[in-house]
Amino acid sequence: MVGENLPRSLKWQPALEGWVPSALTTANLDDAAARLTVLDQRLLPFSIEYIDCFTSKQVCDAIEELAVRGAPAIGIAGAFALVLWAKNEWPVIREAKRQANPKSDVDSVTVFASKLEQRGREIAAVRPTAVNLAWAINELVAPARMAAYQGGSVDKITEDLEEQACQLMEDEIYSCKLIGENGAVIISTLAQRLGRPLRIETHCNAGALATAAWGTATSIIYHAFENGDIEKVWVDETRPVEQGSRLTAWELEQAGVPYTLICDNMAGSIMGQGLVDAVIVGADRVCANGDVANKIGTYPLAVVSSYHSVPFFVAAPHSTFDKSLVTGDEVVIEQRDEAEVRCMPYGHQWLPIAPSECDVFNPAFDITPNELITGVITETGIEFAGE
Amino acid sequence: MVGENLPRSLKWQPALEGWVPSALTTANLDDAAARLTVLDQRLLPFSIEYIDCFTSKQVCDAIEELAVRGAPAIGIAGAFALVLWAKNEWPVIREAKRQANPKSDVDSVTVFASKLEQRGREIAAVRPTAVNLAWAINELVAPARMAAYQGGSVDKITEDLEEQACQLMEDEIYSCKLIGENGAVIISTLAQRLGRPLRIETHCNAGALATAAWGTATSIIYHAFENGDIEKVWVDETRPVEQGSRLTAWELEQAGVPYTLICDNMAGSIMGQGLVDAVIVGADRVCANGDVANKIGTYPLAVVSSYHSVPFFVAAPHSTFDKSLVTGDEVVIEQRDEAEVRCMPYGHQWLPIAPSECDVFNPAFDITPNELITGVITETGIEFAGE
Repeated sequence: MVGENLPRSLKWQPALEGWVPSALTTANLDDAAARLTVLDQRLLPFSIEYIDCFTSKQVCDAIEELAVRGAPAIGIAGAFALVLWAKNEWPVIREAKRQANPKSDVDSVTVFASKLEQRGREIAAVRPTAVNLAWAINELVAPARMAAYQGGSVDKITEDLEEQACQLMEDEIYSCKLIGENGAVIISTLAQRLGRPLRIETHCNAGALATAAWGTATSIIYHAFENGDIEKVWVDETRPVEQGSRLTAWELEQAGVPYTLICDNMAGSIMGQGLVDAVIVGADRVCANGDVANKIGTYPLAVVSSYHSVPFFVAAPHSTFDKSLVTGDEVVIEQRDEAEVRCMPYGHQWLPIAPSECDVFNPAFDITPNELITGVITETGIEFAGE
Repeated sequence: MVGENLPRSLKWQPALEGWVPSALTTANLDDAAARLTVLDQRLLPFSIEYIDCFTSKQVCDAIEELAVRGAPAIGIAGAFALVLWAKNEWPVIREAKRQANPKSDVDSVTVFASKLEQRGREIAAVRPTAVNLAWAINELVAPARMAAYQGGSVDKITEDLEEQACQLMEDEIYSCKLIGENGAVIISTLAQRLGRPLRIETHCNAGALATAAWGTATSIIYHAFENGDIEKVWVDETRPVEQGSRLTAWELEQAGVPYTLICDNMAGSIMGQGLVDAVIVGADRVCANGDVANKIGTYPLAVVSSYHSVPFFVAAPHSTFDKSLVTGDEVVIEQRDEAEVRCMPYGHQWLPIAPSECDVFNPAFDITPNELITGVITETGIEFAGE
């Protein structure tokens, strides 16, 4: 079973009631060893391997190389990275400074807080467009700065950082659970209307691997499946990084939910044949007007859904809302490595499937305007829903 | 240069005037050796290898395994397969029959014609939904049957078969050239209207590799590019078999036409940003009402084009028209091997990218209704175009 050999100290299961979708969790902090264990998502579904991180740099590398991905999961990992820095790296840095200059003020809490803040900025820069990463870092740094100003001790601040990172993860899990419950009510209504369980389509991975425990879109699927309201799930493979075929398919298999894998460009065909009753996707950012930035391919899926009058839902916690952006036009779209399009991910390798020097366009996300979205399902209910 | 080492006896170049897109041709019959040489498309763009076929079985295997693909190309290869059967296989079969029964009528022209017809049916069955294959076989078998009835000789009929297969290929090449010229006029009009060269998007491979010499969609691109009316081409990679990234990208590179490769699900993003001026795709079948069956992903591309008011053209010779089908609803969609979705093509291998036993949906084609198509560009002009 996945997660079996992980340290249990900060496992989320006790906080949850009822059925849970296997022991999947993106990050586990082992308190005693001051070690963060993350599942290496690049190797899924062929190999289940974990990366042990003792330093914030190791966590940043894991984020950069997509071993950990998904907006909320990156936020959690980033918060834990800051904890590792305080516990494992700061003592070494401090000792080096002390030896270099015995009269320096390295033991002062303000120096610690200033270095923590600086490291936080560096961690947030690893994936600049993931709103949750900068948000999570700030959730930890701001109280630390305040505590330092009020004369708190480094040990106490470090302890608080750890508690806060764990709380952040617990909150995320709880939000995901509530999103699932809220979404399941909507699915139940649709199923009652049709008089049968639904065929749901999903894009990319908005599951445990991208968040914590329940996922967002998958949380709705798990809860609705428990209620008997889902017949099966259509899983888009989600080129170029294949988060659908590699991750969502694997998660649904773990959870025992029937699914059928398709290439992204088959959605039109199955919708034209009436085989899709609703679409549920996650989000990387929800703008103030309800426009949604999500994995590339979400927008054309929404257009095709609208053409076929298939309800199109976004599942996202409020931590993914970015009210500073009025519309999707203001979202800066991250262009990723051209190798992702020229090649196919295969474990740690990228195998070529196109001329090696060909010009490539590789936007990681696209913007779905609110008028194509039936509603955004959050931990508090449904938002931006039409009349 | 591609095709350099091929037998020249039946090369198409002399029949064409002006600029041609490299020496690409799908099939070359070497008259003296009675050998058909086909380019192994499975290995592109990494390796340029040819398959020598001396028997119709070898050609059928090449078609079945997608070494040769594309509706018109399959038709041409199928016709040449029948020629190989008459030249190389029938004498062996006849000799065996004669030895088994010296009194049999194996030398009679009617026995030959009957066996030819039977073999033709078997060849056509290799890709049952490719309208051109059955059509091409019938183009050869019908006159042979008539000649046999009228008392023609086996040698003469064999000679006629060969001539007819070559003519079929020449006709296809000429049709493709005319499609290109007709399409270039339309592109020129659009370019004049915009006051600049166009960015064209294409899906799958409707090029030389799928037809002969010019291709259909690519013929328009080549001709319009020569006129200075094309800035660049957006190439959809076209999962699952990657005919875009492996074949179209490679062809355009050979021809020196600037292109940018994208994953299929990025079309929405680039159209949303106004980066696509027109779409041109090929067709596997055009129904009587103008509905078009083409490679999976064509239909959602047409929906997204319509949403963004981007003109959507289909390029196809009349040999791809199937007037026996009133609408696209009557087209039977071929489901292909599940391994194509679970895996990624990599030369002769299929590398896994999904759980090995997962349920898969793999329709090879989808249907684009005529109302989403701006017009079908043929060798005689434009058809099914709106007012």
